[in-house]
Amino acid sequence: MDFSARQIADFLHGEVIGNEEVRVSSLSKIEEGKPGTLTFLANAKYTNHIYTTQASIVLVNRDFSPEQTINATLIKVDNAYNSLAMLLNLVEQAKPKKKGISSLSFISPGSTIGENAYIGEFAFIGENCVIGKNAKIYPQVYIGDNVTLKDNVTLYPGSKIYEGCIIGNNCTFHAGSVVGSDGFGFAPSADGYSKIPQIGIVTIEDNVEIGANTTIDRATMGSTYIRKGVKLDNLIQVAHNVEIGEHTVMAAQVGIAGSTKIGEWCMVGGQVGFAGHIHVAAHSNIGAQAGVSADVKSASSLLGAPAIDFKDFARSNVVYKKLPELYKTVSMLQKEIEALKSSITK
Amino acid sequence: MDFSARQIADFLHGEVIGNEEVRVSSLSKIEEGKPGTLTFLANAKYTNHIYTTQASIVLVNRDFSPEQTINATLIKVDNAYNSLAMLLNLVEQAKPKKKGISSLSFISPGSTIGENAYIGEFAFIGENCVIGKNAKIYPQVYIGDNVTLKDNVTLYPGSKIYEGCIIGNNCTFHAGSVVGSDGFGFAPSADGYSKIPQIGIVTIEDNVEIGANTTIDRATMGSTYIRKGVKLDNLIQVAHNVEIGEHTVMAAQVGIAGSTKIGEWCMVGGQVGFAGHIHVAAHSNIGAQAGVSADVKSASSLLGAPAIDFKDFARSNVVYKKLPELYKTVSMLQKEIEALKSSITK
Amino acid sequence: MDFSARQIADFLHGEVIGNEEVRVSSLSKIEEGKPGTLTFLANAKYTNHIYTTQASIVLVNRDFSPEQTINATLIKVDNAYNSLAMLLNLVEQAKPKKKGISSLSFISPGSTIGENAYIGEFAFIGENCVIGKNAKIYPQVYIGDNVTLKDNVTLYPGSKIYEGCIIGNNCTFHAGSVVGSDGFGFAPSADGYSKIPQIGIVTIEDNVEIGANTTIDRATMGSTYIRKGVKLDNLIQVAHNVEIGEHTVMAAQVGIAGSTKIGEWCMVGGQVGFAGHIHVAAHSNIGAQAGVSADVKSASSLLGAPAIDFKDFARSNVVYKKLPELYKTVSMLQKEIEALKSSITK
Repeated sequence: MDFSARQIADFLHGEVIGNEEVRVSSLSKIEEGKPGTLTFLANAKYTNHIYTTQASIVLVNRDFSPEQTINATLIKVDNAYNSLAMLLNLVEQAKPKKKGISSLSFISPGSTIGENAYIGEFAFIGENCVIGKNAKIYPQVYIGDNVTLKDNVTLYPGSKIYEGCIIGNNCTFHAGSVVGSDGFGFAPSADGYSKIPQIGIVTIEDNVEIGANTTIDRATMGSTYIRKGVKLDNLIQVAHNVEIGEHTVMAAQVGIAGSTKIGEWCMVGGQVGFAGHIHVAAHSNIGAQAGVSADVKSASSLLGAPAIDFKDFARSNVVYKKLPELYKTVSMLQKEIEALKSSITK
Repeated sequence: MDFSARQIADFLHGEVIGNEEVRVSSLSKIEEGKPGTLTFLANAKYTNHIYTTQASIVLVNRDFSPEQTINATLIKVDNAYNSLAMLLNLVEQAKPKKKGISSLSFISPGSTIGENAYIGEFAFIGENCVIGKNAKIYPQVYIGDNVTLKDNVTLYPGSKIYEGCIIGNNCTFHAGSVVGSDGFGFAPSADGYSKIPQIGIVTIEDNVEIGANTTIDRATMGSTYIRKGVKLDNLIQVAHNVEIGEHTVMAAQVGIAGSTKIGEWCMVGGQVGFAGHIHVAAHSNIGAQAGVSADVKSASSLLGAPAIDFKDFARSNVVYKKLPELYKTVSMLQKEIEALKSSITK
Repeated sequence: MDFSARQIADFLHGEVIGNEEVRVSSLSKIEEGKPGTLTFLANAKYTNHIYTTQASIVLVNRDFSPEQTINATLIKVDNAYNSLAMLLNLVEQAKPKKKGISSLSFISPGSTIGENAYIGEFAFIGENCVIGKNAKIYPQVYIGDNVTLKDNVTLYPGSKIYEGCIIGNNCTFHAGSVVGSDGFGFAPSADGYSKIPQIGIVTIEDNVEIGANTTIDRATMGSTYIRKGVKLDNLIQVAHNVEIGEHTVMAAQVGIAGSTKIGEWCMVGGQVGFAGHIHVAAHSNIGAQAGVSADVKSASSLLGAPAIDFKDFARSNVVYKKLPELYKTVSMLQKEIEALKSSITK
């Protein structure tokens, strides 16, 4: 890319403050900005960097008014982060795309591959699969028997889909992700645990993104469901028969135990754990490292382990830090009361 | 499968309540039951679904007595969950089995492969390995040099066994699991950390199942041990020189630091962490997200971080939620005592 | 190996106490020591084993003085653990080394491979890569386009480096590790989340070791940085635009959210979580399972979630366990004060 501030402002319907002719050829973070790059300011925490950044252009929100001189040319837009995303998409789309079916991949007989697919080296596709249009199947991907991939699915290197699973349109799976491994089901006896076969599948709806090395287990019976628009970060565990509602997003290392249902439009922080067989209602917000062991009402905001309302958690946590002092105060009060009692008795 | 209630009851030594001739062709969960499917009721939490399920047959425990009319045919058995497991096994066994050694796999010279093995495409087997009977080695599996697999071992796609490790009979490894990676051993100096070579191995005994993307490090010297019958869920970390005792089961994302020994028949919840060099005695029960930093006595039940007896944890946690109120009460008492003291002094 | 106590002591500049002629052929842990093996005592926790070990030779620190008779020959050295590391290195170096480029690997045109490389079966190397000297690329490794590996890099089976990433000298990546997967960046709208393309890279400096199934995301713009000498254990998550300072070490299952900077020479326990956009200063020590949600001063030692000074955590935690008792005491005091007040009023 090589564009002037004027050209970029026109593309973004923005307003130029400063030199319209300055040109940029790449993007940068505001604290690392170099001449010839464009950066952005969307998070107020980074405001001080705008006065020192070496970047040539900074995207800012329309309501931004500088408190000091700024060397960079500014482009004011309605939403600096969304405008940045538009530019990032331009850069992304300009990258060369992988094409063709490698002669070093293996496609089992009886599977059909949609038009315009890329299938990389050492990728394996099992029997009776239906692979939709524009699939991007990177090297070393595994797709078991009877898998359906709808259109525009990207599977990064070494991602694995076990047999029978169903993947919607426009889904992306990062390296090492696993879909359809056996649920953790064992029946105890005096001699040890015997395996409960897991004969269900995983169904992933449209527009889902699954992070690197995340694991999603198949159902014992029926299906584990990842509803449309869900975004899961890396190293997340989704157990058998879980259902994650539409447009719910989860940060890395979350764990969800079996048969739990998470509603739509929830936001879940990193390392949160959910017990099995519970129901988390829609629009809930679960803070990082929380432990959710019971049903959660709609639009709750929880923190802590066991998780409670985040305001209650904050209040209890303030006192937690003062516990040694509180303990001493109580001991002292105890002594004073004893003293009072004996002074009164006398 | 296509069976009548009568045929299934005979197979399970159960008793039919209702239409003996109704037929089913698949299994379902009770809340998703459809006509033509068989379901089960084992967890009392799901009892209300039995009155509305559309499933044609429901397996129930012998002591179940309905409180309303049920449309489905019931089959009463000694243990509904175990009976379900028997039916799931029937379905599982009817699935076609993978066979043969792919010409696209690579087997190093000097390794021997037992009878009836399946070795999938792009699987790699190193030098001097001994692979037992009925091995199922899926595509893209890696087996390093000098590995021993006893009989009936299943390695799902992309699972990896580093050199020298020993795997018992009837073990299963899910996709992306890693056995025998280097333990995390480094010696500090003023210039940085130098690696301590990890020259030991991992020994996995019979009837072990290892979840997707779980990692088990090789010993510095000697062996990391996973004893017979252990079941580990997904994304678990087992550090060098750890020993997990027979028939212990662990839910996803547990982490065990180096040289810790876990006894037999323990149950460990998700996301639990164990410090290094400790000993957790047999039959212990460690609740989800606990942090175990010291030795644990036999048959303990622990919760919390640092982990304490689960009843103590529950009691402290009740008060934790009331801390702001407790703090206020103590402040008020302090004032009242001051008032009392001055009233007495006057 | 087969050496006498005399030979080993000479190599380590140590002093023999006991039979100089006793010979050993392998290494063992002190509690599992067998005749013909050498073991070591570095952690005082294991001292009692030295009186019963069957090992033929024990490395001990010079200041060790036995309290009972010891059957084994002792070799006294300045630092028993460092001396053990020297012997482990000897054993490691004696192992046969992998060599040559497999005809079953795939190397894209335009990539250059340095001298003395090992490239295993089903490994994939993309376009325009520069692979340095002495690379050890195990089977099923994936290296995307435009990746640079400097010299002496080891990639264990199934590790994956996405396009454009830069890897320093002497780095090691364990099985299933992922470098350069997309950062978790999505812009919300009423219809769902849209992906923010992640056009940055990951830069890994010299002497870094990355554990099995650990994931390191590429930057949105610019680079995620892992500075020289960093050691990361298994199953760790490093989000986009994170920077980990030189010689910082992290135990397994740590998670670091986006744009957070960790200083140099920090030590981080297992399962710790770091919030995004924070700065942890150098030489900090973060205990296992801590949750770090704000900036951390240099040389801090933190514990708990939210993390506080470890001594404060210990003090509060002592009282936490006594909360039920404290609660009762306060209730009782409340009653006594009521009684005092009425007795005074009368």
